[in-house]
Order: sequence, then C-alpha cells, then structure tokens
Amino acid sequence: MGDGDRTITTDSAVGSGLTRPEAVIPLRMLHSPVRAFLGCVALTAFAVATAPAPADEGMWLFEKPPLDAVKGSLGIELTPKWLEHVRKSAVRFENGGSGSIVSADGLVMTNHHVGVDMIVKLSTQERDLLETGFLAATRADELKCPDLEVRVLWEVSDVTARVLATGSSSPAAAQAARKKAIADIESEGSADGLVGEVVTLYQGGQYHLYRYKSFTDVRLVFAPELKAAYFGGDTDNFEFPRFNLYCCFFRIYEQGAPVQAEHFLKWSANGAADNEPIFVAGHPGTTRRALTADHLRFIRDVDHPTRLDAMSRMEVAMQGFCGRDSESARTGIDDLLGLANGRKAYTGQLAGLLDPRLIASKVLQDERDALTTDRAAGAANRATLAAIAEAQSKHREVFALRYAVDLVARRSPLLRRTLLAVRAAAERSKPSGEQLAEFSDAQWPSTQLDLVSPEPVHDSLEIERLTQALTLLAGRRGGDDPMIVAILAGKGPRERATEAVIGTAMKEVAARESLAEASTDQIADSTDPMVRLALAIDGPSRRLRNIVETEVEPAERAAYAALADLRFKRDGDTVYPDATFSLRLSFGRIQGWQDGGATVPSFTTLGGTFARMDDRKGQKDFDLPPSWLAKRDTIAKDTPFNFSCTADIIGGNSGSPVINAAGEVVGLIFDGNIQSLAGAFVYEPAVNRAVAVDSRGIIEALQIIYNANGLVKELTGH
Amino acid sequence: MGDGDRTITTDSAVGSGLTRPEAVIPLRMLHSPVRAFLGCVALTAFAVATAPAPADEGMWLFEKPPLDAVKGSLGIELTPKWLEHVRKSAVRFENGGSGSIVSADGLVMTNHHVGVDMIVKLSTQERDLLETGFLAATRADELKCPDLEVRVLWEVSDVTARVLATGSSSPAAAQAARKKAIADIESEGSADGLVGEVVTLYQGGQYHLYRYKSFTDVRLVFAPELKAAYFGGDTDNFEFPRFNLYCCFFRIYEQGAPVQAEHFLKWSANGAADNEPIFVAGHPGTTRRALTADHLRFIRDVDHPTRLDAMSRMEVAMQGFCGRDSESARTGIDDLLGLANGRKAYTGQLAGLLDPRLIASKVLQDERDALTTDRAAGAANRATLAAIAEAQSKHREVFALRYAVDLVARRSPLLRRTLLAVRAAAERSKPSGEQLAEFSDAQWPSTQLDLVSPEPVHDSLEIERLTQALTLLAGRRGGDDPMIVAILAGKGPRERATEAVIGTAMKEVAARESLAEASTDQIADSTDPMVRLALAIDGPSRRLRNIVETEVEPAERAAYAALADLRFKRDGDTVYPDATFSLRLSFGRIQGWQDGGATVPSFTTLGGTFARMDDRKGQKDFDLPPSWLAKRDTIAKDTPFNFSCTADIIGGNSGSPVINAAGEVVGLIFDGNIQSLAGAFVYEPAVNRAVAVDSRGIIEALQIIYNANGLVKELTGH
Repeated sequence: MGDGDRTITTDSAVGSGLTRPEAVIPLRMLHSPVRAFLGCVALTAFAVATAPAPADEGMWLFEKPPLDAVKGSLGIELTPKWLEHVRKSAVRFENGGSGSIVSADGLVMTNHHVGVDMIVKLSTQERDLLETGFLAATRADELKCPDLEVRVLWEVSDVTARVLATGSSSPAAAQAARKKAIADIESEGSADGLVGEVVTLYQGGQYHLYRYKSFTDVRLVFAPELKAAYFGGDTDNFEFPRFNLYCCFFRIYEQGAPVQAEHFLKWSANGAADNEPIFVAGHPGTTRRALTADHLRFIRDVDHPTRLDAMSRMEVAMQGFCGRDSESARTGIDDLLGLANGRKAYTGQLAGLLDPRLIASKVLQDERDALTTDRAAGAANRATLAAIAEAQSKHREVFALRYAVDLVARRSPLLRRTLLAVRAAAERSKPSGEQLAEFSDAQWPSTQLDLVSPEPVHDSLEIERLTQALTLLAGRRGGDDPMIVAILAGKGPRERATEAVIGTAMKEVAARESLAEASTDQIADSTDPMVRLALAIDGPSRRLRNIVETEVEPAERAAYAALADLRFKRDGDTVYPDATFSLRLSFGRIQGWQDGGATVPSFTTLGGTFARMDDRKGQKDFDLPPSWLAKRDTIAKDTPFNFSCTADIIGGNSGSPVINAAGEVVGLIFDGNIQSLAGAFVYEPAVNRAVAVDSRGIIEALQIIYNANGLVKELTGH
Repeated sequence: MGDGDRTITTDSAVGSGLTRPEAVIPLRMLHSPVRAFLGCVALTAFAVATAPAPADEGMWLFEKPPLDAVKGSLGIELTPKWLEHVRKSAVRFENGGSGSIVSADGLVMTNHHVGVDMIVKLSTQERDLLETGFLAATRADELKCPDLEVRVLWEVSDVTARVLATGSSSPAAAQAARKKAIADIESEGSADGLVGEVVTLYQGGQYHLYRYKSFTDVRLVFAPELKAAYFGGDTDNFEFPRFNLYCCFFRIYEQGAPVQAEHFLKWSANGAADNEPIFVAGHPGTTRRALTADHLRFIRDVDHPTRLDAMSRMEVAMQGFCGRDSESARTGIDDLLGLANGRKAYTGQLAGLLDPRLIASKVLQDERDALTTDRAAGAANRATLAAIAEAQSKHREVFALRYAVDLVARRSPLLRRTLLAVRAAAERSKPSGEQLAEFSDAQWPSTQLDLVSPEPVHDSLEIERLTQALTLLAGRRGGDDPMIVAILAGKGPRERATEAVIGTAMKEVAARESLAEASTDQIADSTDPMVRLALAIDGPSRRLRNIVETEVEPAERAAYAALADLRFKRDGDTVYPDATFSLRLSFGRIQGWQDGGATVPSFTTLGGTFARMDDRKGQKDFDLPPSWLAKRDTIAKDTPFNFSCTADIIGGNSGSPVINAAGEVVGLIFDGNIQSLAGAFVYEPAVNRAVAVDSRGIIEALQIIYNANGLVKELTGH
C-alpha cells in the first residue's frame, strides 16, 4: 500500500496518539453510482452501533472474544487454545496491513496491496517486480526488505486502572498524566525481547498493554505480476464478482535464519463451502461506530472533504507523473494506487455520512446514551455529549490547515525522515511522557527504522510529490502568509522542492543518523536545503498538533471514557471497541448478497478471469500478464478464485487470513464490497461483505501458472 | 471541449457579466515537473504587462490593429482590406472555441477539442464517432448539431461614451446604469440579421459594440478518430514535439443550404517555413495581464485552489464512471477530457502565480500606475489600487461557496436547462437592464438555444455528475446547513440526484419550454423533482451572484476604468486589452525554443507519429486507430504535421487558423507549450509557444488516410 494517506503524527479522530498509519484501507473500490445508490437505500434501518451487536457484526478483542455471539450465530465454541493459536499466527505489517504465518519456517502470507510498498522498493530500473512478479528460487534468493517491520501479538494485559489512576481535574492535565503513564507502561513492557504498546480502546474507556514480538528482517518470497493482482483496476475495485490473485508471501528471519514458528496456520485441504462459518484475524485500522452524531458531523463536513480535495489533486497529478515514462510509472505507481485507494474509500464513507439516516441513527444512539431515570446522571451524560461537540468545534478550526501542513512530510519520505531526524535531537532528550509519542522509548525503535530506511530516493518523484503538497499548502493559507513565505523561501513550490531534493545530503542514511545525533543549535545552523525545509515545517506542525493534543483530544478522551463507562454498565461485554489497528477477530459465513433484487453469488472461478478479460478487451487494467495467457488452457477453470463473506472488516484488515473452524487457511482478505465502506460507521448485515482470495485459487495459480512447487509444498505439505 | 468548467453565470474575475464559457482553455497540458520547473526558472524577468508590449506579444483588437508592432517585428504592413477579410473569415464557436471559414460553401475548420462536444452529442450507442471518426460522403450526410451556434464578427463600433455617460456617484449605481445602457445598446444592435454584444475591454476602460452574424444550423463534415486527434493523451498534453490530427470540419447552413461565404480563408499551397511570419485570428478566452497584484493574489490564493480542488475531485470520479463500460465511456469522455484539460491549465497557471517573481512584477506594475509627479493624482491612483484590493477581500468571502453552488447546475446540463426555464419566467418579464444578463433581449436567443437543446440525457451520467457536485457542495457548507438541507431534501446526494433525474419531465424539450412560459406561482407549485432542485439552487445562487455583481464587480469596474484611463494617457495605443473571448489578432513566427539548453525544433512530421507510437508501445493513449496503422507505409513520412510558433494565444484560441502574410491557412491552433500557461498573466517571449497542426499534415492525412478527396478539393481547389 502506498503511503498516500499516512501520517507521521496523531490520527486525532481516533486519538491513538501513536505513530501509526491512519485509516489504512485495503478496500480498493470503484465508486459505482448505481451500486452506491443501492447500497445507500439498502441502509433503511441503521443499527444503533453501541447497542449489542447483531449476528456477524464486530471486530472483537482476542482478550475478550465473542464466545456467545459465535456460538449463537455459527454454533461453534471457541476455545482458549484456538484463540491463542490464531492470535500468535497473525501478524501486523507496520507499514499498514495484516498477514499471517503459514509455515513452520516463518512464511508469511499477506495481500499484494500490503506488499506492494516493498515490491516497489525492491524493484530497480533493471528489475521491475510489478511487471515481472517475483519467485525466490531458493531461500538465498529471497529479497530482504529495506524497512519493513512485522509484529506478532504475544501478551495482553489490562492496564486501564493504572492509566486512569492518575485522575486529574482538567482534561488537559489528565491527558498529560495518562501520556506519562502510558509511556512508562510501554517502556516497562518493552523487555524480554518484546515491544510494549498501550492500545487505547473504547475511545479511552480501556487501555490494554499489548506486547509484541517484532521482526525487522523480512524477505520477499513470492509476488505475482501487478496485472494479475490488480486485474480490473479501478473499474472493478470495490465491485464483486472479482478475479484477483491479490496475494504475496514474505518470510521472517531472526539472526539470519528463518524463524521457526511454534504457531502457524495450516492450509485447508478443501477450502470452504458456501455458507460455511469463517473467521478473520487481522488489524482493522479505524472505525468510528461509537462516535457521537456531532463527532460524525465533523468528519462529514470537515475531515473527509478536506482529505478528498487533497487526495484527488494528488491523484490526478500522480497520474500525469506516472504517464511520463516507464521509470516514472515504476517509481510512482505505489503512491498512485495508495492515493486512488484512499480517495475511493473516503468517497464511499462520505456518501454514507451524507445519507441523513446515518447521522439520525447516531442521534438515536446519543439519546440512548443520555437516557436515564436519574436526573443528575442525565445532565452529566448530556454534558458529556456537549463536551464532544465542543471539541469538534475546536477541531473544525484547525483541521484543514493541520492536514495541509502535515501532508508535506507525509508526501515526501525524504522530508519525513529529515523531519524525524530534526525532531529526534529535541525529543529524545526530553523526559519520558513529555516526548512526541513517536519518540517515546517504546516507539523509538520503530521510528528509527523509518529514519534510517535505505529506501532509494527517486529525485523526480520526490520533487513531484513535494511540489504537489507545497502547492496545496500554499493554497490553504495564501502565498503571502508568513508560514508559507518561510516554507517556500522566496521561490515557487516546484523550485523550492527541486532545490531541496537536489541539494540535500539527507538522501544518505548516515547523514540523517548524524543529524539525529546533532544538537538543536547545530541543526538550527544547517544550510542543507531539506533540513531548512524541515525546520520551516516543524514549528507550524508542532503548533497545530499541540492544539489538537491539548484542546481537542483530552476533552474527547475524557468524554468518551465517560460514555464508555455508561455503555459498559448498560450493555456489559456485548460491545466491541472501535478498530484501532490492533488485533481483532471477526466472524461470519461465506455468503453473497442481494443487490437490487439480483443475487450476487459468493464465489468466482479462475476461468471467470479469462472470460472477464475477453469481455473488457482493450480496456486499461483488464489485460492479464503473459504467464496467465500461456496457461489459459491448462489451468483448472472451475477452481474457486475469489469469494465474499459476512465478516466485519475494514481498512487494515488487508492481508488477513480467512480461516475455518479448525483454524486452517481458506482465504485471504483483500477488499470489501462498496456497501462495506459505510462500515466505518455502521455494519449493515444484509449487504456488508468482505472479499477474499480463495485458498484453492492461490494453490492452483502457484502450481500451474508460476511453477512455485516448493512454495505450494511448504503451504500444503505436498 | 467538455463543459467541465463552464459557468452559466458571470465570470466575475473578468467581469464580463455575460453568459459565456469561462476560461475556455484549449491547452491540453501534462503537468511535467521538469518542464514546469524549467519554465519557471526561465521567467527571470517578467515584463510589466501594461507597459508597451514586446515583439510578438499581444492579443490585439481588429479595430485597433498592431500595425506598427507587426511592421516592426515582421516587416509586414497590414491593410484594412486584409484585416476585414480575416475578421469576416474567423468564427467563434459559442460552446467555447474558435474557427474559420475555409471555403466558399461555408466550410468551417476548428480543432477536435472544440468539436468534441458535438461529436459526442451526435454519437449514439450504435454510432460512436469518437471511436470511428466521421466523414460525410455527401452534403446530405452532414450531421446537424443539436445546439451549436457559431458567429462571425461583422461590425464594430465604440460605445464607450454612451456606456460611461451615465455617470453615477456610487459604483453600484454606476454599474446598474451601465448594465441598462449595455442592454439597450445590445438590443438596438440586434437588428438587420445581426446580434449585438457589448464587449467590455480594458476591465471597463472601453466598451465596444460587436455585431455578429449568427449561424445555428451547423453540421459536422469530418472528424478523425479520438485516437488520432488525442494521440499521446494526457502524457503529451502541453508537451512538444506533438503528433496530433487535432482538427475537424463543420459547415454552416442558412435556410437549409450551405452558406455562400463572401469571405473565407484560402489554403496555402506550400504551408509555412521555419521562422516565417504568421498570424492567428481567434477568440482568446481570459487573460489577466492587466490585473493588480492584489487581484492576482486573490486568484492565486482563492480562485485557482478552489477550482483545482473541485475539478480534481470530479476528474477522478469521472475516470471511475468512464471505466464502468463502453456506454459510460462514450457518454462521459467529453466531460472527462474537459475536466482534465481545465485542471491542467489551472495547475500551470497556479504554478506561475506561486512564483513570487510573477506577483513581484505586478507590484512593479502597480507602482508604475501609482507613479506621478502630481501628489493629488498619486493619492487617487493609490486609492484606485486600494479599491481593487478591497473588492478582492469581499470576493474572498464568497467565492468558494458561490463556485460550489453554481457548480451543481454547471455539472448537470439537465439541471442547468431546468434552472434556465425556472428563471426565464421571472427574468424575461423584467424591464431591460434589470434582468440577469443572459436573459437580456440580446442574449436571450443564445440562452434559449441552450434551454431547448435536444441533447439527449444519459441518466447514469447525469446522476453521476449531479451526485459529485451535490457532494462537493455539501462539504463546503456542512450537511446541516439550511441551504444544504433544502437542496438535498432529506436524502443523500446520490439518492437526491437519482430521484431528480429519473423522476423529472424536464428531459423533454417541450416540458422545459412550457416551464419557461409558466407563471412563477405555477413553478413554485411544481412537484417535478428537478424543478424542486432548481428552485432550491436558485435562491442561494442568485444571492451569491448578487453579492459579486453589486459588491465586487462594480468596484473593480470603476477602479479598472480609472486605471485604464491613466494607462491610455501614459502609453497610448501600445496596450492591448486582456482577452475577453472576443476576436483578436496575434502574430509572430514559426519558431521552436530553448529548453534547459536544448533546442526544441519547431516542426514534427507525420512519420514521427509512428515512431512515437513504437516508442511508447502499450501505453494508454499511444495507440493509433486502424485507419492510420493501415497507411503506415503509404503516407508521406516527411510531411510537416505539428509546429510551434510565437503567437500569443490562450484558452479560447483553440481552433483558430494560423495564416500567412497572404491571409492563407498554414495551420490550426490546438495547444500551447507548458510555458504558455503563465501567459494568462505574463507573456514570456523566449519560451511561450502556441502549438498548431500544419496545413500540409491535414491535407496528407485527409487524402491518404481518410480518402477525403472531396474535402481536400474543397479546401485546396484540386
């Protein structure tokens, strides 16, 4: 996935306060008007999301598994052993996605969308892995990724009491105290080879310490050609039926040898049948189902329109860049796909939010939360809702500008890493708890991995992306604004970007490392043009972040903690927390759906791929690679290829394994249907579907098309 | 040209007050970062635009021709007879573009970009003229366009004194008086078979009455396939060398017979040589060279960013729409090309504006304007500049919202025509001078031509475009804003768009005609969902338009009239007025330019087209149609195909003839290089180039590829 919409700062809407890809959305969608409209009218009766979940809804914590719901809906009793095994087989890709360990030798499966970031970084002018695909002939041929970390969730403990123990009177003081407590807990939790991370659940109602095994030696084993993974392109995105070999395989190493995994998912011999119960273990990025109506109004009126304006502008600009020549296409495609993907997901979410019935369902939820026979408690509940509304008013004032400022470093990896180095000097020497979150002791190793990434810099791509972001920022503020004048330093955006990229020493890892060790005085005196640019961005970026972290998030956090408390008291454990890019279990069945009176069947076949190609002959993204064309007559046409299921997923679940009741792999999540986009806010059981590659389709393609017999043997044992 | 960025209201930045395509930009450009940057640094010394023009600069009035400049630069003496002949051979396409009469039988040449609007409207599911191209076998086979008007400028008179005679003390009263005078003059001028139009020149310094011959029976004679016209697509847009058969031919009819034209341009026997003097007669849409620095700051900080946000969002959405199936592609492509085109032109213009040297050059211009030895006059001049700045402050407050409101009707032709019908009832009964400009007696016939256009409505396209615009508008204002609530009527944008398009009777011409005749009470009671939508848009649209027309434009008009006056006194006739989509004469030479030390040669050849195709094999938009592939070995490869020249042009010049000193056609304007985009604000002689199809390339292609021998004979006489 491209980093089209990653942030290096807090995603304040979920208030995680951590360096984290925000809203990592696997869901490549076409904004089909007919489908979207049908999806829209299908949402006639939104569930009140914080009421007990209907069947198949929910992204559940492994430490609080939906035992009753699963038994009730699927008739299956989950055991602690099953849950531990699945949890320890699931991995999180820190660049934004999910995956699973699928062999005793540390083989990791994810989807192409998650892997494409690395596939691009591992490509060169002579070796375009998007064009050719990749299969390591031997383990020695596996390609080491420059800056990829994957994690396995090893231990969980509830630290709510300790985080909240530091009760302070003002939200801001409480926030500072919590931040300190979290930093301490994470620091203590980062021991014995594990990395500690405090996950904020229920918008601040609970805090859990997650301790991960971290793997930073990750190597590429197999990836199909982009044409096979991304078949149908934008047109088929978020549509179903689909025909995509949307997978790739990595291997995790420790001390130069493949990890010997105690826990890994076995391959199902026969795959899954229609209506069969399935489970998905993955890392959904962000949902906002528990938010109040006023909070969603902020997202509808400010957050999403701001993002869509920016992402659309960058997308069309990147299309132009990629069209220039094959080198530009190779280096820019990952970014372009990421932008298109994010833009489409936000488009679908916004369409959901603009349906007045969605907000109306949240107004009902708010009323339910306020409702009590105790007059004093009722007033307090209403005050809680009002506090959230007030925080949104504040956020409305700064969101667009902060987004535009942070976009500059988000668009330019070179600037981002330079800014990390500039900040490291200032932040790393601060006491624990006072640092920007990504510089805390627990987070620093991950941040550092980015800072010292050897990812090659493509000057023209970097200049293009920086120019786009600087142009956008100038338009948000006006060319004579002192901040803009300081950032552009008397030049036009392209000229400024060009001098910064061409003239900087920061393309060298060593230069960034050395900068990160420098004193703030030395940095302030630097004449490196990229460092100057980072310094010009640093101040406004910090100032805006500080407003959100002191005037928006603490109030939200306090209010949502109060809401969470009353919801717990009312609903008990029947409520799952909103997604936070931490490990969750979803469940459901393989199932199609009804679309405008027609049945959308749950399975497609490999043979259907060729039929679809013939049908859309000559259209962009509907041409299969030579490897597929050569095996058209050989491949078993009836092999199930993609399927839809009712599991409740969202961006970040990309690459999650779909497993059966026995814990065996039957598929690989890569998308959702268009109706699933409003799932950021509500789950609609009749039409919300996850889309996966069938395990049988993967094996048939690996065997027949790619002659990847070693890989197949490792997966299936024969 | 698609109507991606047409307005049904005033383009307030130029203050024309007329229904007019705004900023009609022929310039299909790729925003190439390298080129743009080079273009940027090449602009080291901007000319002060209102100072006497350097050689080859200027879009001159035919009634005030640049006799001295042409003689000085080219050594040619223009005669009144030459000027009249060229003027009466030039035509304006009212849908936004230029053209010329090129045979005694009323054959009209323009470029494919201008014609594509009609080519799409004349296509059906069975007859996709973009795919197949079109050549009328006989005159009886020529295809009548549903709603195209072309005009020829027949008479010009200076009415400045009469318009300005009505001196009033306040700018608003003066504006109202001017509006009344203009309506009266246009009404009087619309007689004897001519249509009167008062053109506002020098931002209000002069007013000329232009009387046109109008032709509304226009038929398609020839168009190549889109692949031949648009070869290289976005990638080659605004680049040079180019290889495009970017032409098409229409014929104007009167009373069912081809017009017998007294004036038409003959075809040059030998075309033009490198460095040969050439002229361009056409209708440049909008330049802003005479604007003050503060006015350009408004454009830089508000106008262009607002447009780019919106156009980019619609462009990516339209890409998705066109990708759905071949029918969507056929119906949506014109819109998509128009959006891409406009977006790219604004991108290039914004890049120019963000180069601080450009604004600095305008600050110098302002200082020059303020400069005088008379202290009282100096204070008055500074007050004039301040009045323009103040008008910009007001405009900043309303621009984005007004743009978003008007965008809804601009995006949906069905809504636009319904809104015209709704307004016709109210406006046509008002006294002359009090009507919205497009409903004045003089403008009403053109407005009516749009209102009753039989252009077919494609429901899914209409729903898509309406949904996009409603979504964008909701985001600008917030979903709970009373205006948005009224417009959406309790539904999501797509649902609202769908019910309005599916449920309306306004797709029928007769229904719109009848609505336009109805009483305002009857209209207010209508239950037609598109009429309801038009009514919901009408109020806010009028209110915002009124703010601009009373609080922004009058102040601008008064101040620019004063500026024009002092500039006339200082510079005399050496100053040309900014472009106003009225007829202008540009001149220069066929010439390449220096780009980063390399010479870009001025000519390409037909053979180069095939070489380029081979070079970019497989890339989108680089495949030639079958007709070309079949004649690869037959065609004369060395035939000049496209060329660049120094003539000063801008959007709206699309389709202008390039003529030699003898008044013969040597080419056809279709584009400019990327450096020409900043030409909206300054003309940079070293690098600003217009791009044209060579007359010899047109003939060779018509003969060899299209066997259009009748057409060739009509053009060349043999």
